[in-house]
Amino acid sequence: MDLIINNKDLAFFALGGLGEVGKNMYVLQYQKQIFIIDAGILFPDEHLLGVDYVMQDLTYLIQNEEKIVGLFITHGHEDHIGGIPFLLKKVKIPKIYASGIAVDLIQNKLIEYKDMPPVQIVEYKSHYTYQFKDVELSFIRLNHSIPDSFCLVFKTPYGNFVHTGDFKIDFTPVGPQAEYEKLARLGSEGVLCLTADSTNALVPGFTESEKKIGNSIKDLFKRIHSRIIVATFASNIYRVQQVIEASILTNRKVAVFGRSMEKTIEVGQQVGYIRCPKGTIIEPEDVQSYKPEEITLLCTGSQGENLAALSRIAGGTHKQIKLIPGDTIIFSSSPIPGNQEGVNKTINLLFKNGANVITHSPLTDTHTSGHASQGELKLLQALLKPKYFIPVHGEYRMQRVHADLAIECGLKKENAFILENGDVFCINERGARLAGKVEAGDVYIDGTQIGDISSTIIRERKILSEDGLFALVITIDTNNKTLPLEPQVVSRGFIYMKDSEALTKHLVQMSKEFLIKEINKYKTINLNTLKYNLTDYLTKLIYDETDRKPMVLPIFMVLDTETN
Amino acid sequence: MDLIINNKDLAFFALGGLGEVGKNMYVLQYQKQIFIIDAGILFPDEHLLGVDYVMQDLTYLIQNEEKIVGLFITHGHEDHIGGIPFLLKKVKIPKIYASGIAVDLIQNKLIEYKDMPPVQIVEYKSHYTYQFKDVELSFIRLNHSIPDSFCLVFKTPYGNFVHTGDFKIDFTPVGPQAEYEKLARLGSEGVLCLTADSTNALVPGFTESEKKIGNSIKDLFKRIHSRIIVATFASNIYRVQQVIEASILTNRKVAVFGRSMEKTIEVGQQVGYIRCPKGTIIEPEDVQSYKPEEITLLCTGSQGENLAALSRIAGGTHKQIKLIPGDTIIFSSSPIPGNQEGVNKTINLLFKNGANVITHSPLTDTHTSGHASQGELKLLQALLKPKYFIPVHGEYRMQRVHADLAIECGLKKENAFILENGDVFCINERGARLAGKVEAGDVYIDGTQIGDISSTIIRERKILSEDGLFALVITIDTNNKTLPLEPQVVSRGFIYMKDSEALTKHLVQMSKEFLIKEINKYKTINLNTLKYNLTDYLTKLIYDETDRKPMVLPIFMVLDTETN
Repeated sequence: MDLIINNKDLAFFALGGLGEVGKNMYVLQYQKQIFIIDAGILFPDEHLLGVDYVMQDLTYLIQNEEKIVGLFITHGHEDHIGGIPFLLKKVKIPKIYASGIAVDLIQNKLIEYKDMPPVQIVEYKSHYTYQFKDVELSFIRLNHSIPDSFCLVFKTPYGNFVHTGDFKIDFTPVGPQAEYEKLARLGSEGVLCLTADSTNALVPGFTESEKKIGNSIKDLFKRIHSRIIVATFASNIYRVQQVIEASILTNRKVAVFGRSMEKTIEVGQQVGYIRCPKGTIIEPEDVQSYKPEEITLLCTGSQGENLAALSRIAGGTHKQIKLIPGDTIIFSSSPIPGNQEGVNKTINLLFKNGANVITHSPLTDTHTSGHASQGELKLLQALLKPKYFIPVHGEYRMQRVHADLAIECGLKKENAFILENGDVFCINERGARLAGKVEAGDVYIDGTQIGDISSTIIRERKILSEDGLFALVITIDTNNKTLPLEPQVVSRGFIYMKDSEALTKHLVQMSKEFLIKEINKYKTINLNTLKYNLTDYLTKLIYDETDRKPMVLPIFMVLDTETN
Repeated sequence: MDLIINNKDLAFFALGGLGEVGKNMYVLQYQKQIFIIDAGILFPDEHLLGVDYVMQDLTYLIQNEEKIVGLFITHGHEDHIGGIPFLLKKVKIPKIYASGIAVDLIQNKLIEYKDMPPVQIVEYKSHYTYQFKDVELSFIRLNHSIPDSFCLVFKTPYGNFVHTGDFKIDFTPVGPQAEYEKLARLGSEGVLCLTADSTNALVPGFTESEKKIGNSIKDLFKRIHSRIIVATFASNIYRVQQVIEASILTNRKVAVFGRSMEKTIEVGQQVGYIRCPKGTIIEPEDVQSYKPEEITLLCTGSQGENLAALSRIAGGTHKQIKLIPGDTIIFSSSPIPGNQEGVNKTINLLFKNGANVITHSPLTDTHTSGHASQGELKLLQALLKPKYFIPVHGEYRMQRVHADLAIECGLKKENAFILENGDVFCINERGARLAGKVEAGDVYIDGTQIGDISSTIIRERKILSEDGLFALVITIDTNNKTLPLEPQVVSRGFIYMKDSEALTKHLVQMSKEFLIKEINKYKTINLNTLKYNLTDYLTKLIYDETDRKPMVLPIFMVLDTETN
């Protein structure tokens, strides 16, 4: 299907965030204006060997650079801002619009990269509006697991286009309430199209309030009389504040471990989200001066990440903190799918070293999600009553169930659109339609600097990872049709060569015989054919002998005796 | 600590199964008799690149082969019988004792391997006893997610040593009841030492009855009027029988997909655990002759395994079954940690292709565990009142919590022993003690035939998997100290060579310059030093240029001109 966006169309598509949780980037286009919403990264699963991040394919933005009005950030999580350096390197962005703590987080991020093109960051507030020709942009504050999360409202000639950003409805939040009256007013004004967060669309009921978790943590603190170590997401500034409050309540000093947690405390105190009496937060080296029951250690590593503070403490490799028998570790977090095994390993280590471990469970309510469950998603539908609905920010099954929820709440079935990345949804005076596709694949990043790798490379890594490599270096005299030097074998990740001398010798001998036969078959030697045939022969031979399929790499060094 | 097992000691240790879920193998030794309990495999996590199975270190058994009385199998799950071929190849086992379906499963398994030494399989029944000199062995039938699961009771001169095997307490099981009166009698007779299944020690309450799941599946079947596809564990014969019963109830024929599921039906019908009127189970090719609402497809793939029947159906690559919009897939299973992402991918694909998906949830009770939760573990303690307790079959955190539960039920704190694989626990007339360690590491198996690989190989695969390989073949004339041929570069999984000609040329040029300088530094050329220095130099150079750290492999071909 060819892509046809007409000049009168209001077009919406995702370059990331549909069919996945991560690398969010949505694009709204009206006439000659492109609004980019968020620029996140995706952390790859273990099948993408050696890939550090996955990014968006930016082809469409590069080709339509001159139309870009700006990048509009809903909130400061990595899956919404982590892709900004990559975007800025590839596409000219006139301005970034962001609010509150997201501004600080973006500024901190840009400092870490060299050669960043200069960009103006405009700080929006919840009561601001911006006029971009025919389109007026306004904001609605919602609740989430990081402060300053906003819903974007684009008032267009066709009606209001609403993008929730990540959100939950928390009636007793830590921090400001969501702006319900704005949501209700928007609903009565009319919503042409709603695009909403689907992360928890599979979860029945309502997401627990953040304050309830704070109370539960306080109750735990009152019952624990040993040293307490709390691991949580560094970006969850409200949670960090609640842990500090529980510490103050039970006369504990707080020491902070892990780079991102230290950053949170620093930025959080600057913007006023982290508040505590002077002297509450102490330096790591001062922990020794207090009794265990006077100390809370606040650290990173709640996902069992190998190098994070908690994993080092659990494994006994942390420079400053050694576990004391009786230490209580509280996981104020849930494992993200894929991290379960790492978290379990950490918990086993902690238990082994004499610590007690408390994880989130119905009996010990130490965590809540930042995303709306089914009850809240229905509430949103009831308040906004959109004409068209596009579930975003989630895997396909989440999008699908989210669409079903909306239909249950009164949306017309034909007005729910479950899109994939790149699918272009258009509205004009005649109605809505799918208008084709823009390029929206995955771009793999390996290394801290910006650079991408192809799926061929990942396929090669996959083969190497499973059975290693068997390389055979052959010196060939193409004129005399001889092999003047003994072929050399180099293998890695396949067999332990010192233990496999007989096998290696056998493989070399068979290869030599095969090659001599091959090169004497024809008048001239075609090296490519020879390489291909030897690879084929050796692969089969090795599989027969060892049941393994290493990558077979014949390397020919050609001695051309005549020209010498 | 040296290992000291005295002749009068009753010794117990694990060669697998402690600190992990998998590769169960426990050893009980008294005087000159060794009883091996189970021989399972462990499926490796994704960090063990290319490893197919993890097995036990059998050194102790090899060294004490003449003492081995036999292998005693508690039940027929892979983590209890999957290691039998490996064990038989390495150690002479006089007899295997097994019961019911485990016998068939073991026989089927041994047929698949060539060169298996002959072994006698003795089928025990729950009322049998065996006398091995001073030790009498008897059995207690318990409930589990496969028929014929037994608790082993070794009556020794010091008292009863009890090993539960995998179990749950199901008051309304499918199949025979657990033998509670035997448990109670054993308790009043006295239990010297209990070793019990810890898999669900972290789960509060009681594990749901298998029959409840059957009823829940029947209720679902009554409400669904499309084709139904059920995915479950092939070994869960009771579940398979219940799905067949639900199909009969709602006038559906059952077609079976996936090799292990076909095997289950075959063996299950032979031994009488699968019972249905003739014509209920139909051939795959006959599915077409029925309306969708008259069909149940029963298949493997409940863990999202890439090549299993359900994944092929979901991905549209199954030869016989294409999804029909409206198909309902029931997952009668829970994802094992580590499989969550694979399962989610399958669910997304199913939804995308128009199917409905029902997974186990509080609202749709489609699965229950085969392992005892905390309530049942406490019941076991109350019935048996052991003097010594060793939690087995579980990760450390499960063992630890299981020990705490036993202490809560009245066990003396000092009589709970949390062991690791290899820790030897001994009892004699003076009491219990830890007597040292036997070798009990992991043995990695790569390939279907039996053979093991070292952790060095896995480390090499890890490096190759992350940044690939950069090999440089250098022909060196050691006498004239020249490089007569241009060095050749071969790289895989690192950079795409066709796109990186400039980089490759640069690296070759720099290497040549480096080498010429090096070989002219000294009078004679030490190839090892040269290799080491070049590796070091190139690794740093490549990291500077690309931010990646491929495995650097210099290969030297030596032309010794003088001797030619």
